Amino acid sequence: MERINIGLIGYGVIGQGVVKILKSRRKFYKDKYQKDFFIKTIADRSIVKKLSPGLDNTFLTPDYHAVLNDKDIHIVIELIGGMNPAKDIALSVLRSGKHLITANKELIANCGQELFKEANAAGRSVYFESAVGAGIPIIRTITEGLAGNKFNGVYGIINGTCNYILTEMSRRQLTFQQALKEAQEKGYAESNPTLDINGMDAAHKLVILVFLTQGKFVGVRDFYTEGINHISHEDIEFAGNLNLTIRLLAIAKRVGNELDVRVHPTLIPKEHALATVNGVDNAIFLDTDPLGDIFIEGQGAGQMTAASGVVSDLVNVVLRKDMAIPVWAGNPIEEGEGLTIRKIDEVETRFYIRFMVIDKPGVLAIITGVLGQHHISIASVTQKQENKGLTVPVVMLTHGAKEHLVREALEQINHLAVVRSKPVAIRMEKL
Amino acid sequence: MERINIGLIGYGVIGQGVVKILKSRRKFYKDKYQKDFFIKTIADRSIVKKLSPGLDNTFLTPDYHAVLNDKDIHIVIELIGGMNPAKDIALSVLRSGKHLITANKELIANCGQELFKEANAAGRSVYFESAVGAGIPIIRTITEGLAGNKFNGVYGIINGTCNYILTEMSRRQLTFQQALKEAQEKGYAESNPTLDINGMDAAHKLVILVFLTQGKFVGVRDFYTEGINHISHEDIEFAGNLNLTIRLLAIAKRVGNELDVRVHPTLIPKEHALATVNGVDNAIFLDTDPLGDIFIEGQGAGQMTAASGVVSDLVNVVLRKDMAIPVWAGNPIEEGEGLTIRKIDEVETRFYIRFMVIDKPGVLAIITGVLGQHHISIASVTQKQENKGLTVPVVMLTHGAKEHLVREALEQINHLAVVRSKPVAIRMEKL
Repeated sequence: MERINIGLIGYGVIGQGVVKILKSRRKFYKDKYQKDFFIKTIADRSIVKKLSPGLDNTFLTPDYHAVLNDKDIHIVIELIGGMNPAKDIALSVLRSGKHLITANKELIANCGQELFKEANAAGRSVYFESAVGAGIPIIRTITEGLAGNKFNGVYGIINGTCNYILTEMSRRQLTFQQALKEAQEKGYAESNPTLDINGMDAAHKLVILVFLTQGKFVGVRDFYTEGINHISHEDIEFAGNLNLTIRLLAIAKRVGNELDVRVHPTLIPKEHALATVNGVDNAIFLDTDPLGDIFIEGQGAGQMTAASGVVSDLVNVVLRKDMAIPVWAGNPIEEGEGLTIRKIDEVETRFYIRFMVIDKPGVLAIITGVLGQHHISIASVTQKQENKGLTVPVVMLTHGAKEHLVREALEQINHLAVVRSKPVAIRMEKL
Repeated sequence: MERINIGLIGYGVIGQGVVKILKSRRKFYKDKYQKDFFIKTIADRSIVKKLSPGLDNTFLTPDYHAVLNDKDIHIVIELIGGMNPAKDIALSVLRSGKHLITANKELIANCGQELFKEANAAGRSVYFESAVGAGIPIIRTITEGLAGNKFNGVYGIINGTCNYILTEMSRRQLTFQQALKEAQEKGYAESNPTLDINGMDAAHKLVILVFLTQGKFVGVRDFYTEGINHISHEDIEFAGNLNLTIRLLAIAKRVGNELDVRVHPTLIPKEHALATVNGVDNAIFLDTDPLGDIFIEGQGAGQMTAASGVVSDLVNVVLRKDMAIPVWAGNPIEEGEGLTIRKIDEVETRFYIRFMVIDKPGVLAIITGVLGQHHISIASVTQKQENKGLTVPVVMLTHGAKEHLVREALEQINHLAVVRSKPVAIRMEKL
């Protein structure tokens, strides 16, 4: 029975989940894989406060160098998150001939290229299944399950917090603030949920998906990202009447030599698989060639799901440790070098637009006139109620229209006297 | 650039798809994986009738021994199907030190154990992604993506023909025969569709899933299999009114030390992901620990999807050829040895039952009386129309009831004078 010595850096929620799994399943893994997964050292700044029973044979230390400098440790699991000192730790792990497992999306999104080069040079592997969809095997599906396929597009619901909020707003007519508060109470949202809500968490994950599907590292600031805090449950309801569901979607499509990459609240036809993804679930919809469409869904948040992804990495790295270079790191990193990101201004989508206008004759003619001047054609218009002389919502669905034209038209409309608040615009995606 | 010499045995629909992909994507694979996939030899009994342009450098022969005896061939793709001579070919491939890729579900279901032992002994791999869900990476998801998880249950829609028929019966009120005929015209069903329709194709695939999730090879005759040819569109409609959808489901659940394994038409709540799987799509729903529920869906039939699975195997076997033993073959085959299959008689499920009865007072009392004697309690009863003195359908949903009690009760009811045709019973699955 081969003993696998593991060093764990960062003993927070996920780290404790990993230990829980490895402890409770030790015999299962011995039987199934003929390996003894042994956590030799745990390093955590606050380790003295986190002492938990049953770690008698594990060395506990506040200093991560005890892991880095231990030649008997074969695999390091980095779970501290953020860039500093995670990046130095990661590089040091690979340079000292250990394999690296991390759930750190920021690290992979920002330094993936550097880490993969280092891993290739050292003949070691970087595994990061939990960095995108917690335990859902999204990364392994793309890199191995669909090996040999081209990816025309990837569409992901990859932030469980946002999906929980949107689902509950829709299901129980909650306001954004009510749903967010509930998500925090249930432990689905961080106490500072800014990076979830503003789309940046999904944007980091999308950078990883773009690399895996298109072979190019893009910067998180190189594409358009919009969060969900301006979504009201009225819009969810109006969209529902049009048979549409709102989800925060991370999108990366290949359009010729351009990449259409963006994160924003998106209207999806209710009968599409992505529209049925509820609560903290994550899901990915892949448009591939020659295989066609693939959809994968599972829990996207929670201690044990993220920990499960880490453990699956652990099993995989051990079972194939003779193969120094994993499929994705073996990809020539320049594969997608010629690709450029399409400017958001030039992206063409359909739009749901809600105007709050004075209910009087001629208003619609003025608004549609401005839209027409900007070459925006309208698929449907609904005035939601009658309220002569007072403010009423008018909801429009446009045909495909260029982003900058819509923005310019809405700016102009926003200054009209009959328009009472900033128009709400939500993009729709053809799937 | 390493050249990978491939031998292809069986040049039917899927084989031609594989060649099509490898030819059209040769440069893509060279760029992406630094490998040149070269089809050195194609063996097919009817090769002279199947000559296709662009295979100038490939040796074409009716004799598969030309592949087996060629020491320069590294990987053999077996696509002839059936057991004979596929089994001899497979064993010979592994014994001569080549890797084996096959889409042959019958072969893996019946001889998987023998083949994996042989592969382990020879230090070679057996890959069979296309044997279960065509190109959908079901096998890789279970064995690698979810490595480290326990599988409480697997629920699969793994026969595209049946799913197409049930979908179209439901969507367009077709009869079974009409939908089957259409499936054949569209090339989704074989000219002899018996093995699809009677559930045996799904049963073979389920044997593979049971092995992958529970570590035990069961025989296809050791569990209950029921096809879809007795499903009427009336039952689909009545079930629809109860918010239920009918799908041919392959089920394998762990219940203590027993396996509950079966294939039959199954009622699923409409809002469950499996109920949204339409047309020729395949899908798997996995109940895992600690990850939770995972759902994966994609096209389950068609030349290019099955071919895509084969090509993905090819890429994976090449990229990890230093790892002699794939995860699943490395599993101790005895892992699940203590498990026994629960007798179908002892399985407890809820039932949808449709009775065709004479519409007169007292009939319901007689039927429910018999059910009561068999300890079957009723959740709902609907008489579908009124037609005094004539035959009308009565639809019942039971609570959980043991299979043998339901069968005995229905036999007794079937002999009642007021009952005009054999009751239709469809099991319901709690998901």
